[in-house]
Amino acid sequence: MVSASTSPRVHPAWLPDAALAPLGARRVLVDLGRDAGPVGATVVEEVRRATAAHGGALTVGDDASSTDGHDLVLRVAPDGPDHGFTRLRTGGVTVVVAPDATGLLHGLHDVVRAGDAAFGADHAPVTSRPVAPVRMLDHWDNIDVHPVMGQVERGYAGGSIFYADGRVREDLSRVADYARLLGSIGINAVAINNVNVHRTEARLLTDGLADVARVADLFRPHGVRTYLSVSFASPVVLGGLTTSDPADPDVQAWWAAAADRVYATIPDFGGFVVKADSEGQPGPFAYGRDHADGANLLARALRPHGGTVFWRAFVYNHEQDWRDRRTDRARAAYDHFAPLDGRFDENVVLQVKYGPIDFQPREPISPVLAAMPRTRLAVELQVTQEYTGHQKHVCYLGPLWSQVLGFPLAEDATRDVARIVSGLPGHRDTPSGDLPAGGITAVSNVGDDEFWTGHPLAQANLYAYGRLAWNPEADPVELLDEWIGLTFPGADPRVRATLHTLMDDSWLTYEAYTAPLGVGFMVDPGRGHYGPNVDGYEYSKWGTYHFADRDGIGVDRTVATGTGYAGQYPSPWRETYEDLATCPDELLLFFHHVPYGHVLHSGKTVVQHVYDSRADAVDVVTSWVDAWAALDGLVPDGLHARVAERLDEQVRSATEWRDQVRTYFFRKSGVPDATGRPIY
Amino acid sequence: MVSASTSPRVHPAWLPDAALAPLGARRVLVDLGRDAGPVGATVVEEVRRATAAHGGALTVGDDASSTDGHDLVLRVAPDGPDHGFTRLRTGGVTVVVAPDATGLLHGLHDVVRAGDAAFGADHAPVTSRPVAPVRMLDHWDNIDVHPVMGQVERGYAGGSIFYADGRVREDLSRVADYARLLGSIGINAVAINNVNVHRTEARLLTDGLADVARVADLFRPHGVRTYLSVSFASPVVLGGLTTSDPADPDVQAWWAAAADRVYATIPDFGGFVVKADSEGQPGPFAYGRDHADGANLLARALRPHGGTVFWRAFVYNHEQDWRDRRTDRARAAYDHFAPLDGRFDENVVLQVKYGPIDFQPREPISPVLAAMPRTRLAVELQVTQEYTGHQKHVCYLGPLWSQVLGFPLAEDATRDVARIVSGLPGHRDTPSGDLPAGGITAVSNVGDDEFWTGHPLAQANLYAYGRLAWNPEADPVELLDEWIGLTFPGADPRVRATLHTLMDDSWLTYEAYTAPLGVGFMVDPGRGHYGPNVDGYEYSKWGTYHFADRDGIGVDRTVATGTGYAGQYPSPWRETYEDLATCPDELLLFFHHVPYGHVLHSGKTVVQHVYDSRADAVDVVTSWVDAWAALDGLVPDGLHARVAERLDEQVRSATEWRDQVRTYFFRKSGVPDATGRPIY
Repeated sequence: MVSASTSPRVHPAWLPDAALAPLGARRVLVDLGRDAGPVGATVVEEVRRATAAHGGALTVGDDASSTDGHDLVLRVAPDGPDHGFTRLRTGGVTVVVAPDATGLLHGLHDVVRAGDAAFGADHAPVTSRPVAPVRMLDHWDNIDVHPVMGQVERGYAGGSIFYADGRVREDLSRVADYARLLGSIGINAVAINNVNVHRTEARLLTDGLADVARVADLFRPHGVRTYLSVSFASPVVLGGLTTSDPADPDVQAWWAAAADRVYATIPDFGGFVVKADSEGQPGPFAYGRDHADGANLLARALRPHGGTVFWRAFVYNHEQDWRDRRTDRARAAYDHFAPLDGRFDENVVLQVKYGPIDFQPREPISPVLAAMPRTRLAVELQVTQEYTGHQKHVCYLGPLWSQVLGFPLAEDATRDVARIVSGLPGHRDTPSGDLPAGGITAVSNVGDDEFWTGHPLAQANLYAYGRLAWNPEADPVELLDEWIGLTFPGADPRVRATLHTLMDDSWLTYEAYTAPLGVGFMVDPGRGHYGPNVDGYEYSKWGTYHFADRDGIGVDRTVATGTGYAGQYPSPWRETYEDLATCPDELLLFFHHVPYGHVLHSGKTVVQHVYDSRADAVDVVTSWVDAWAALDGLVPDGLHARVAERLDEQVRSATEWRDQVRTYFFRKSGVPDATGRPIY
Repeated sequence: MVSASTSPRVHPAWLPDAALAPLGARRVLVDLGRDAGPVGATVVEEVRRATAAHGGALTVGDDASSTDGHDLVLRVAPDGPDHGFTRLRTGGVTVVVAPDATGLLHGLHDVVRAGDAAFGADHAPVTSRPVAPVRMLDHWDNIDVHPVMGQVERGYAGGSIFYADGRVREDLSRVADYARLLGSIGINAVAINNVNVHRTEARLLTDGLADVARVADLFRPHGVRTYLSVSFASPVVLGGLTTSDPADPDVQAWWAAAADRVYATIPDFGGFVVKADSEGQPGPFAYGRDHADGANLLARALRPHGGTVFWRAFVYNHEQDWRDRRTDRARAAYDHFAPLDGRFDENVVLQVKYGPIDFQPREPISPVLAAMPRTRLAVELQVTQEYTGHQKHVCYLGPLWSQVLGFPLAEDATRDVARIVSGLPGHRDTPSGDLPAGGITAVSNVGDDEFWTGHPLAQANLYAYGRLAWNPEADPVELLDEWIGLTFPGADPRVRATLHTLMDDSWLTYEAYTAPLGVGFMVDPGRGHYGPNVDGYEYSKWGTYHFADRDGIGVDRTVATGTGYAGQYPSPWRETYEDLATCPDELLLFFHHVPYGHVLHSGKTVVQHVYDSRADAVDVVTSWVDAWAALDGLVPDGLHARVAERLDEQVRSATEWRDQVRTYFFRKSGVPDATGRPIY
């Protein structure tokens, strides 16, 4: 079912009615074949609504229906490509073929994105198949407002679309709208509660199942399966057992019964997401078991039903002593998990953050992704802008994710991250020989905000995430362009041009005014990682240090003299990162402690780079204000005002970053800025 | 009336039954003369309870009663000293004479404190009179739990004794116990709600009056008058007016009517405490009026009833730009208020924090106290340990307050702070010639904690505050000894010795492991000013900077080259502080920016002083753990355990302070610690 937005005040994101005009003006035949599921109904309803609005016509036919008299044929056929669709143009008719209604829905939106161009000259079949079979969004939404973390942990777009007033919302119309948006970009999995599972939220697995089913009913018609984050301590917390030990038969029985109940209520339930033995969450360590024992416990409960465990590899010592330079948080995931390769059941996916620390704007790629060929792996990205400006800053993350997914991490350089997590041939060497793949996951950035994402332009991140999860080789700037066309259909060309000006390189601009050269953090702990605080995490328990002194800065993670983290990489990366001469500038301070006068590949000293890039970046951000102001009247007023207000804040905040970071390094190094720009 | 503690779990502080044994074992005659007020009943009840418990006898007589057959005579007589009492010993009878029952109550407790020594050899009359006529405690208690500041702002002892569940408590027995404690040390005024007056709390002035009266009824029998903190915006917030402009007749009428209602309900109501145009609180600036206009508005409403306005001088720009080194928060109170000297009505007291910043462990004395001879002044201290370890650290503040009150600030060196705020002859030069004095105020440190103050030893701060407010010339270590004797009556002598070991110099020890040489702050903004964060306030809006760079540290507040703050002092202090050669070490960095190699009067360099004093102080704190452990079994178990637990935390926290501050300065200065102790 396709629901319209319940309130005219909710922004349609990239699916305004006008974006469907090229489709809606055509005569469309839909043939669902034998697929009688709810997604087919969505396809029909999308076409019905678009054609009704834009003067076209819908015919619902079958495989006997002629394509004559139609501009577009959407057809479920057994020869459609697995998980995808094929589009061709022949005899003036555009034909989309998919093996099931879900593929057809994705093909339908492919036509929407193409617009009139889908109805041009004849062309040969083009097949589109997602690289990653699971393309998930994780919601860090809480049912009860958490006293510190709020309704949505790391949420910057208002409340939760799922929960309010301590319960699952009665009115889930925003979820229905959201499901439509996700289905349109190929997302097929969603975990609806925070990985930090508090007491109330734990009960979704038991008392809350009817509510979870209501949510799943809204995602299902868009090809999206529902997952729950669960507490490893559930047998104790919910079941009244005295232990959650994976080896305990009562515990095993409890999980099996819990899974049985879930699937009795939601037959296509996706599975569990688990954060265990991480930042205080319970886990198998309490019982002397390891992560494989823990994950397999849950996997065996889900297996009879076809469910999957997404087990997070984000495990490290969060009570570190800042005095201790031998312990390295960056090493932790590899040290914990690499030895377990081959021990996880086949329905366990190990969910690995893209970098070894925590969603920084710049990190090296996690070496765990190269280290576990006999394990299903998923890479975890962060759409919500925890470390990238809280959706107050323009920071288009498509280019970051594109780099991550395309990074040739494995020893065979053709095995980039996307291929690793997609389980493409060559990666695996397991008894079964053809383990299913892992996938791509990310933390969502939506809330009950009018614009979904707080900053209206942050919608582009959600869009790009879905599109890149389907096709990691897509050009992120082209995806941005696609998003602009859909979101601002028919807009003055200046809108497109200005959005490119603001957004194309906005990630690099954000990086340029924040922590330099891959050193990370320098965010304010007191404001949830927003704004500058150069020493904010320097003397903390979190393992996130830059070690700046009057002579230099950076973390020595070399094998020769440092923590040895560089040695966790396969060649050539271990050598590349180990050697100051080959380590890329943007990761220099992640791998090396260098004097301020160290000369970068760019030819600048470290300290002058810090000075220059911060000042230059603020000049760039400042220029955006006028550029955006010139769009007044060319985009909807409310959206214009919201972006304008956030740009003002971005300028203010970026200026703080610039001045604090420059001043910090001047006070420490004593080196004047060669350009003479103000310093304090 | 004297109430017993309602719960055996509430610690009796310095009034355990045993502390009253020397009195209670005697035959006591009480003669209240013509004073038929509630305080007289308290005197009688105190004696009745003590004698009943300890085998003595009470006779309630009149001025015809013979002193024969009594050990102690407590008598209200017209010739008693104003506000005080006289004690003598003659013919084996101890006689206390006071002009009213309140003085007699204070005399009674003087006998309690003296114990058996009050019944020794005959001696001539000794008169005790309080130096400050108003000796107040301010409670920063909220009715509604504030989302950031909690039930008690800067409270470290549990919830409020006044409020719970969004209303004034039904059961106010803790307030009655508290009133008895306050009366016993001579406190005579209490403001029962936070100076940051939020919406619910504002209504105490109107809808809440019946509840305020219930509280006042409990303080009155102990000689304590009740005050309210009020919002300057009350006419708008409570009265529905469109303005709170002091010049507006409707506003004036509103305040007059409000005061009339208060006094109709509570005839001995003390008055208002006001934080206006400070840290976001409303005030007269919004209407183009100044603080005198604002204070006088309220004063005129109170004047017909004998009430007083305590108007806080804590006014500064709390949206400062850290880049701006010309603005100096330290200057603010003087700049705002000194020009207004002589403009305040006679029932206005200007309440001035002892230092120019904010209750730091070490600040120079506020120059405002020397600058307003035609204004009634009160000095404000902080018993609650906002900046001195949150009542997790042993930090006996008596010596700090003793220094403050005894500081010879005015040009006539005999005019110390205590004399200034007491309006003693020589200070004033006003038309009326005999303005009443200001007083001494402080923020209370009690809550609904079993031990009143979280850390049991923090009770000594409350005790010493009251005693010093009565007699600023008292020796703080003697007061501590007095407190020990009362609180641990009959204890093994090792208790007394150990408490002196821990507490006598604990303020200096705390100073020695925290921010050095008067520079202040370096506390963690993210933990409410607890624990170290050297740069925590360095790039903030709060005007609290140390300006450390690789070469040196400190704030240049000289007239010659700095902010000119030193020039706000009368001679000789302006010259003393201005000159590096005469500025005392402990305030060096408050007044001067110096290189790390600057040699202190102590002979050490600044940086070596930082290294040494932090390390030495932690060694001291660490030694306390064993010293306290040796008292196991010699003090009540619960109290022993509570102190032991807090000492462990103090060692942990002090160690953090030591290591972070030492490391910070090593990283900045590059100067090694000459002693070779560990640095990171």
